[in-house]
Amino acid sequence: MNNQQLFENIRKKGSFLCVGLDTDLKKIPQFLLDTTDPIFAFNKEIIDATAQYTVAYKPNLAFYESEGLEGWRSLEKTVHYLRENYPDIFLIADAKRGDIGNTSSMYARAFFEKIEFDAITVAPYMGEDSVKPFLSYAGKYVVLLALTSNKGASDFQFITNDNTGEKLFERVLRISQQWGNAENMMYVVGATKAEELTGIRNIIPGHFLLVPGIGAQGGSLQEVAKYGLNKQCGLLVNSSRAIIYASNGPEFAVKAGESAKETRDEMFELLKNNGLII
Amino acid sequence: MNNQQLFENIRKKGSFLCVGLDTDLKKIPQFLLDTTDPIFAFNKEIIDATAQYTVAYKPNLAFYESEGLEGWRSLEKTVHYLRENYPDIFLIADAKRGDIGNTSSMYARAFFEKIEFDAITVAPYMGEDSVKPFLSYAGKYVVLLALTSNKGASDFQFITNDNTGEKLFERVLRISQQWGNAENMMYVVGATKAEELTGIRNIIPGHFLLVPGIGAQGGSLQEVAKYGLNKQCGLLVNSSRAIIYASNGPEFAVKAGESAKETRDEMFELLKNNGLII
Repeated sequence: MNNQQLFENIRKKGSFLCVGLDTDLKKIPQFLLDTTDPIFAFNKEIIDATAQYTVAYKPNLAFYESEGLEGWRSLEKTVHYLRENYPDIFLIADAKRGDIGNTSSMYARAFFEKIEFDAITVAPYMGEDSVKPFLSYAGKYVVLLALTSNKGASDFQFITNDNTGEKLFERVLRISQQWGNAENMMYVVGATKAEELTGIRNIIPGHFLLVPGIGAQGGSLQEVAKYGLNKQCGLLVNSSRAIIYASNGPEFAVKAGESAKETRDEMFELLKNNGLII
Repeated sequence: MNNQQLFENIRKKGSFLCVGLDTDLKKIPQFLLDTTDPIFAFNKEIIDATAQYTVAYKPNLAFYESEGLEGWRSLEKTVHYLRENYPDIFLIADAKRGDIGNTSSMYARAFFEKIEFDAITVAPYMGEDSVKPFLSYAGKYVVLLALTSNKGASDFQFITNDNTGEKLFERVLRISQQWGNAENMMYVVGATKAEELTGIRNIIPGHFLLVPGIGAQGGSLQEVAKYGLNKQCGLLVNSSRAIIYASNGPEFAVKAGESAKETRDEMFELLKNNGLII
């Protein structure tokens, strides 16, 4: 996929929603535990109920790995199901990987070849050679952590370089543009840090941002849109728990669909008000 | 395991070697591809040939994930084999994980409960709440990235805070001591950055360091020992490719054992010269 195709899907659906598949056996409706693959059974229902309102899904690898081999199998089935049934969906592996070059090459192979994701989240701490191996795949994206939505973001991401006054996350945004471009890189910017979006858009006007932190973490969609939208929308706003765990009763999928539709309706208005759809 | 037990194993074996299991189907002896599980078959032979010279093994997760479900199965079998046959071995998941708190909790479950590793490498970019969930497991360790061995380390790890003159990796070392202690945290410090070890030992005199970068990456064991050894040794020096790919002929395991023994012999001298074994 490329930015223009992603933007077309956003216009078509009136949505820039990404649904996070943080599927936890302790939180899904307990009657699903009787099925042969509860994680996949849950994901399939959630996907079928929400796909018309969303342009992207983001399985969070931790939740699958925590179930070992079974979890990995559920992940592969989920990706395969999405590819077969919803071919326009943008698929992000929320994996926060990153290692020395030869190791990052293996991660790229894991998430772009062995399982066909469109994008993977990558941590920047180890620098250029830890990111570059992911960038050589045409039509695939690195989603690099810049400014995260959690409390611990303040421990390191705001430290300021003595020569330039530049914060660490700003340096990540600036330096990483030498490695790739808006067609193979996106950035994670937390919705809880919406006030930073103006400055961030000055550094990277054209890139898509993956924005977690709406919902359970307390970020505001209106604020994110106000400071983050660009000419191709440029935003994928993620919601995980608020959608997929909208209910844990027998009607969980219907409720998830309703929750996704509600967010989509708010996004539709924002897209319209900003002249991105007519 | 705790630091004292690890030190006892180091004294017993005269070695502070960690063997990196970066098992790549393209690099292992090709006759192994006819076995039902080539990755495990390779690891088993390597382990049996090197275990007497090493105190730790470090499977690199990328190499297993790149084979999908099969790779994950080989990893589980490898860990199980080590636990059954070499119970004193310290087992590190080289996974470079780290995410918001509830997600890091799932990674902790994956690597400390579902698969029984003793330690996991974690990236610090997301700060305290991304690290803390790993620290609540008694006898388990976070191995936090501080100063890595690769070229890209210079992109961000050396940026200097304007108020204090402190470099990012130094801040990681200092701040993270508020989260844990020498009994549940270790740090990655690349052998290629041995000149920084004196400064690092001033900040964290008592912690174990996991030191990659000997061998293929060009670091010097003598230099690392000179500046990095402490009263409990305090070093686990990793070698991956130089040992496991010492040969790819039928005698690959024997050659790996010889290579491990050579490194162990050098370590034995260093331990003796520094009064850590008699």
